[in-house]
Amino acid sequence: MQVQHEKFEVRTNGKGTYEITDEVQDKIDKSGVRNGVVTIFVQHTSCSLTMMENAAPAARRDVEAFFEKLVPEDATYEHDDEGSDDMPSHIRMVLTRTSETVPVVDGKMRLGTWQGIFLFEHRRAVHRRHVSLTIIGE
Amino acid sequence: MQVQHEKFEVRTNGKGTYEITDEVQDKIDKSGVRNGVVTIFVQHTSCSLTMMENAAPAARRDVEAFFEKLVPEDATYEHDDEGSDDMPSHIRMVLTRTSETVPVVDGKMRLGTWQGIFLFEHRRAVHRRHVSLTIIGE
Amino acid sequence: MQVQHEKFEVRTNGKGTYEITDEVQDKIDKSGVRNGVVTIFVQHTSCSLTMMENAAPAARRDVEAFFEKLVPEDATYEHDDEGSDDMPSHIRMVLTRTSETVPVVDGKMRLGTWQGIFLFEHRRAVHRRHVSLTIIGE
Repeated sequence: MQVQHEKFEVRTNGKGTYEITDEVQDKIDKSGVRNGVVTIFVQHTSCSLTMMENAAPAARRDVEAFFEKLVPEDATYEHDDEGSDDMPSHIRMVLTRTSETVPVVDGKMRLGTWQGIFLFEHRRAVHRRHVSLTIIGE
Repeated sequence: MQVQHEKFEVRTNGKGTYEITDEVQDKIDKSGVRNGVVTIFVQHTSCSLTMMENAAPAARRDVEAFFEKLVPEDATYEHDDEGSDDMPSHIRMVLTRTSETVPVVDGKMRLGTWQGIFLFEHRRAVHRRHVSLTIIGE
Repeated sequence: MQVQHEKFEVRTNGKGTYEITDEVQDKIDKSGVRNGVVTIFVQHTSCSLTMMENAAPAARRDVEAFFEKLVPEDATYEHDDEGSDDMPSHIRMVLTRTSETVPVVDGKMRLGTWQGIFLFEHRRAVHRRHVSLTIIGE
């Protein structure tokens, strides 16, 4: 049994979902771990993590549109000094996820056919986001 | 320390919450692991995972009704070619969970008294859903 | 590699977010684990877990206000015999989180600068909440 920490950056240019499945699998390949789990952890409070249908871009746009409507920028927020997209970004993060743990079987994540891992960016400006991985196994 | 992967199927016949606590505990019993964690992972994008009050069926119906209203089938979605329950199912999945990790202490999951683990089915049709477990411990 | 279980209580006096980052880090310090992961697990169905911006109390109040509005106490629920805050508490739990897994690197949780771990209390009355930790690593 071993523990390996990894890290990578995602450059985001505005709100939306950015697939990171390949980056995660690549780090697992390099770790040499064949059986165990990988924990994906996003080190931010204004973007988040989600699993998503990875074949239909329209489905992703619908998810993004749903969150625009559910947590609108033009509502009244007490914390409003960092831009109209700031407070909605924290709420959307709370409604989605910060960590996911995925089984690693024979060196591959045991994802369903249509399952991808996505960083969900909630801010408008360009950002460099940090994704941390821990791979535990043998 | 050891890693064990397990898998089981849940046959769902329509939207709703299906308790899987006993199936998970049964796999832990068979694994021989006494202290560690179990990660429960749902390999789908149109059903999800949730913890829930397991004693009051009315509470589960209220949760289900809330999601029907929050993510309605009769809204306008761009991705609408797989039935009116398809796009809402992806959004409800994003709003709930795909993986949970639960402590295993002396061979038992350390759940609270009223805590159960549920597969949350978001599609109307009959499905066979795959739940993947990884048990790590000693 | 080792597994250590820990537990602590959080006394809550009404709805709101209660930071538990220091309590979690303290247990990691005492465990002696330098590299691995910590799983934080809340053993309840009427409070939950969330990551949050930890510097701006106004941001936390906005998150709390959002949930008051999204899952109102004055809606009609079938399960209504435990007080008007009971059923909304179960729904708010489903919309947030029960477990999170965080990397532990060189003895410290790899949190982002503004990232804190919070117990999100959804009930009005005073409660003693149980948080369970499992630290796996070396």
